[in-house]
Amino acid sequence: MVNRESPKTQKNRAILQIRAKTLGAARTWFNQNDFTEVQGPTIIPAVGDRPNCFPIKYFNKKAYLSGGLQPYSYAFLKIFEKIYTIAPTFRAEKLKTKRHLTEYWRIEAAASNFTLDQIMDAQENLLTHICQRLTENAASELKQLNRSPETLNSVTTPLTRLTYDQTIEILQKQGQNIQWGEQLTPEIENKLSLQFKQPFFITQFPLNFETFFHKSNPKKPELTLTADLIAPEGYGEIASSGEMITNKKILQRKMVQAKIDFKDQEWYLAFIKQDSNPHSAFAIGLERLIQWICKLENINQAIAFPRTYTNNYP
Amino acid sequence: MVNRESPKTQKNRAILQIRAKTLGAARTWFNQNDFTEVQGPTIIPAVGDRPNCFPIKYFNKKAYLSGGLQPYSYAFLKIFEKIYTIAPTFRAEKLKTKRHLTEYWRIEAAASNFTLDQIMDAQENLLTHICQRLTENAASELKQLNRSPETLNSVTTPLTRLTYDQTIEILQKQGQNIQWGEQLTPEIENKLSLQFKQPFFITQFPLNFETFFHKSNPKKPELTLTADLIAPEGYGEIASSGEMITNKKILQRKMVQAKIDFKDQEWYLAFIKQDSNPHSAFAIGLERLIQWICKLENINQAIAFPRTYTNNYP
Repeated sequence: MVNRESPKTQKNRAILQIRAKTLGAARTWFNQNDFTEVQGPTIIPAVGDRPNCFPIKYFNKKAYLSGGLQPYSYAFLKIFEKIYTIAPTFRAEKLKTKRHLTEYWRIEAAASNFTLDQIMDAQENLLTHICQRLTENAASELKQLNRSPETLNSVTTPLTRLTYDQTIEILQKQGQNIQWGEQLTPEIENKLSLQFKQPFFITQFPLNFETFFHKSNPKKPELTLTADLIAPEGYGEIASSGEMITNKKILQRKMVQAKIDFKDQEWYLAFIKQDSNPHSAFAIGLERLIQWICKLENINQAIAFPRTYTNNYP
Repeated sequence: MVNRESPKTQKNRAILQIRAKTLGAARTWFNQNDFTEVQGPTIIPAVGDRPNCFPIKYFNKKAYLSGGLQPYSYAFLKIFEKIYTIAPTFRAEKLKTKRHLTEYWRIEAAASNFTLDQIMDAQENLLTHICQRLTENAASELKQLNRSPETLNSVTTPLTRLTYDQTIEILQKQGQNIQWGEQLTPEIENKLSLQFKQPFFITQFPLNFETFFHKSNPKKPELTLTADLIAPEGYGEIASSGEMITNKKILQRKMVQAKIDFKDQEWYLAFIKQDSNPHSAFAIGLERLIQWICKLENINQAIAFPRTYTNNYP
């Protein structure tokens, strides 16, 4: 039967098989590490104006498609110490790139009392576990994609952790025209990642880079307790993480600064009710992870029925 | 810490814990039985008028929220023999019941060359596996809900399989005012299910009861090769299944008969491209399963953030 198939079908099967095995490995790791699986809602109330959310007509109301587990994660952490979810997530961004889907699957986790370092530990342990499992049980699929299982097998902890400050220094030394305080564009991140053989973290981005949800470094308040996980070989960001703000007053101040729609602020704070347990969280874009694992040119190869800004979806 | 918690929080935790363990057990069973995990799209094209689908504004287009894996399952079965997915699914029905959510999680599976009997075998083996696992690893949560683990432990194969014809006969003997050819309303199904201690199947519903997707019984063409799985103790339907029509011409004729919007017919048949592999499929409503397992009065207790026609969702 295999002989009658087109190479394209064989390649698709290998990618989807690796995708399934990646999800299986991720869940095994979460279970072994006492993360409870939860599901947040996909339909969320449209209380404020959120240009990056797809609007739904929910009977006579307007609603949005979820862009992630927050603030529902706060509620789950009141009853479980550590949680994870793997679910479709949406963003209505008009981007024509090879690494943005409008509907993507997100591996999201949150852990009570975890510091930034601990949530990075969790991510690198999870990632290493996935890579090890795929080396063992997806070697033939990887070979079909001309991907050496050795590349994944060589991923070992600890992963390199560069601070944003160090990253800027490195880039400047390499002649990159970038100043402290500027965003690392995907182009810069990808270029930097070409110099790495394993995934690595960039940590402590300046304030206002990330969402308003993240804590500041108490010793250097201009920096946030955040970390992006960057895939090597030119693939760029695959996960973001950080210590979350759990104090309602600080959250409110941050939302005002970030110019979040007032109605949204009100809803968000009412939802949280009281200060939450201290915790850190991370979110991995499944298709970005698969894109790197399988070394795919375009992220739309990492999902069976891709939705992007440009495609004519079936 | 537990002592300071309200009984409601404790109950919620037990339910969500059982939900997570049910999903874990289901995936283990699928993996052990060579079903490959896949993900269909959540955003689907709005080609025809589908009153039961929620419309989304997808940039400048109209789209719908998915109501299930079809016809995407046909495409997956071209590359995998057996598939499953566990994903949020949507229906825009204006129903005020204790067993309908507008957003629910669906455990859906399809298997090449499986007959109706084989797909029932699969469902009962999966269900028994879940019940056994929960008996072993969720006994304390079940007890917290005043649910005896023994109830689940006693679920054993084979489950009773009543044909629709037999069911009508039984109901008539019991003095129920129902004629052959009439639908089994949820009320009738629930009442019947009070007479059972274990889940059971009702099979071979008359034509036009189910969707146009199901094959007819070649020996009795007025009956379809379908089966509903009914939870006992008054809970009613938790899964539906059947042998799928895979011949494009027959599918087209059925769609015309079912008065499916013509544009939708055209899209559907174009998507399928050619006749598909013979297969059977089933879909379990996760929250309905949890509602029975946990003996919950209302289905909105089976999910953390329920969306129903009537609720004011947070």
